[in-house]
Amino acid sequence: MTQRPVAVISSRGARRWQDGHPWIFKSDVVTPPAAAAGAVTVRDVQARTLGTALWSPQSEISLRFVARDEVTLDGAWWGARIGAAIARRQGILDGETNACRLVHGEGDGLPSLVVDRFDRWLVVQLLSAGLEAYRAEIVDALVTLTDAAGVLARNDASVRTREGLAKTVEPLSGSVPETIEVREHGVRYLAAPHTGQKTGAFLDQREARVLIGSVARGRALDVFSYHGSFALHLARRAEHVRAVDASAAALARVEANAALNGLPNIEAVEADAFDFLREEERGGARYDTIVLDPPAFAKNRASLAGAIRGYRDINLRAMKLLAPGGMLYTASCSYHLTKPDFLAMLREAAAHSGRRMILRAITGQPVDHPELLTVPETGYLKGALLEAGD
Amino acid sequence: MTQRPVAVISSRGARRWQDGHPWIFKSDVVTPPAAAAGAVTVRDVQARTLGTALWSPQSEISLRFVARDEVTLDGAWWGARIGAAIARRQGILDGETNACRLVHGEGDGLPSLVVDRFDRWLVVQLLSAGLEAYRAEIVDALVTLTDAAGVLARNDASVRTREGLAKTVEPLSGSVPETIEVREHGVRYLAAPHTGQKTGAFLDQREARVLIGSVARGRALDVFSYHGSFALHLARRAEHVRAVDASAAALARVEANAALNGLPNIEAVEADAFDFLREEERGGARYDTIVLDPPAFAKNRASLAGAIRGYRDINLRAMKLLAPGGMLYTASCSYHLTKPDFLAMLREAAAHSGRRMILRAITGQPVDHPELLTVPETGYLKGALLEAGD
Repeated sequence: MTQRPVAVISSRGARRWQDGHPWIFKSDVVTPPAAAAGAVTVRDVQARTLGTALWSPQSEISLRFVARDEVTLDGAWWGARIGAAIARRQGILDGETNACRLVHGEGDGLPSLVVDRFDRWLVVQLLSAGLEAYRAEIVDALVTLTDAAGVLARNDASVRTREGLAKTVEPLSGSVPETIEVREHGVRYLAAPHTGQKTGAFLDQREARVLIGSVARGRALDVFSYHGSFALHLARRAEHVRAVDASAAALARVEANAALNGLPNIEAVEADAFDFLREEERGGARYDTIVLDPPAFAKNRASLAGAIRGYRDINLRAMKLLAPGGMLYTASCSYHLTKPDFLAMLREAAAHSGRRMILRAITGQPVDHPELLTVPETGYLKGALLEAGD
Repeated sequence: MTQRPVAVISSRGARRWQDGHPWIFKSDVVTPPAAAAGAVTVRDVQARTLGTALWSPQSEISLRFVARDEVTLDGAWWGARIGAAIARRQGILDGETNACRLVHGEGDGLPSLVVDRFDRWLVVQLLSAGLEAYRAEIVDALVTLTDAAGVLARNDASVRTREGLAKTVEPLSGSVPETIEVREHGVRYLAAPHTGQKTGAFLDQREARVLIGSVARGRALDVFSYHGSFALHLARRAEHVRAVDASAAALARVEANAALNGLPNIEAVEADAFDFLREEERGGARYDTIVLDPPAFAKNRASLAGAIRGYRDINLRAMKLLAPGGMLYTASCSYHLTKPDFLAMLREAAAHSGRRMILRAITGQPVDHPELLTVPETGYLKGALLEAGD
């Protein structure tokens, strides 16, 4: 252990870690380790040991702490840390679904590691160079702990480039089918781990789908429907559901998923969401239930102002489209749009809408996507359930 | 109708109402009505009719809009408006409880009117002079709609003074007993409508009590327990619950409520909450479940900074007291502490605590306390369910 490479960080970096944030930026690294990517010991400028971190030589995020002491990141360590994350999810997988996130990066004390379980298969993202160095140990631990039939790396996220890592999609163990049937609180849908967005489905909205599904009725609208996982939950109670998406491929999967569930009341509508909402408003349409689950409009801080205009626009139109007593579930998965900004945007949209909008609930991330108060980056998803009071 | 008194308001006031806020401040009244408190027609400076409002001659909030057109506030109007509010709550009273808020002021389009139902009795607050003028119509409508055995006015709120109204507690119809047994999702407690805080109990935390009750275990703590309604829910799953309050009278009711539910595992502790938490931290105590439901520390904007220090202090200590995996439900009912400020305070406390605090849920107001996006004053209660990750 004493021979392990050492990084020395500034007092500002040390304070950041003391305040619960595991990232140390390049500008706070006083002496970088003379080593390839992997585990290093971190010390402050007084040579006090601050803990163990993953070292990414090319990244702006140079170090990601994993422990407050000097620990060896061997197979046993990865098994214990990943095992603790999996143990937190037992209640979910014992119950109403066969899919959930098993590891949510920093939220589980496993920086830059994402693992989603779909039935008997795992989809993994290794999002830093320091983590990539432990790929073998991680895959071994995952297969041992979950008995997975296959592990797929969806390492095509663009953050890998900033780490100096290649973007690839490749099997790491066994094989993973092109589509996997996900069961979720009474509905079923096909996830596409190789080609779908992110790891193949959006597991983070599971509880939100159940929430709006439980109050859905009448004419319903699922805007930015992707493969229709909200639409399926709406269709169990609503008379008619229009699933709106710009992607014909996604809508083909909406129709396949509707058929899989024997739900003939879902209509796939290929359209730009902004155009669609504008046209519906012009036409005086009314809906009893609306879901707005857009992709991240704010990809970075610079695009935030424009993104907020986009969110406000779609929310304003959705509010106007609500029938009296109608319910809107609206979400944002943009990390750069904070919860306060999200609520402020909704307040503005409500003021412009002329409707009495009741805030029925604020939603966040489910238990399998833990958000740490001290690591804002672990939290990206926020939503609100709104009711039109008149 | 054409003889009705008229108020003329500024364009700024008119815009406020167009943006969904029913309050018009004294500074935006261009020509006050030459009339006693009651309903008036409101016009803008171009003599366009903006709607109907309640007029409070002495208040800083001069006008409170109730409609966008000229309407007569007769018995039928009050019956319809109050009836719509009551209809929204049917799902609650058909179910797990015999108590809920029936009218939440502006949130129900009934400015400055609060009505809570406890079993067969109603407790009413008439909080403006304009509203007080319709007391007879309101009580008639309430009795007709609910068949209440008695209606008590808890008109001892200090805001009445600013309206030029007397502070009184008096029966308005029939009689209301000194204590009323409230059933709430499997527990029972005694509310004290004549002498208890607010209208006799805190119905706004009903769902939060169920939430933390559902995950309670081990050693539990209910700080600022009042009459123990959180403690009762904790005690159904936890081994031992300490209910901490500074009021001996409240703690006597904790013990009565514990006995009523046959829950011998609740211990009443008379102490200042700040002192208690400090002592427990010093002694190295650990709890698996903690509830912090303090009174409003911020009574006005001027006291906000000090209030935030108070909230941070108790939350920091509670976080430190949590056993690994322990759960904390923490709330604030200070209107002046916004949701963003509340979350920022929790982030700071978490950073100082040295604990990995997971944000499991953000809670708001239940369906019987509707919060309007465009009327921030309708929203005052926010909470968070936090888990100690290690």
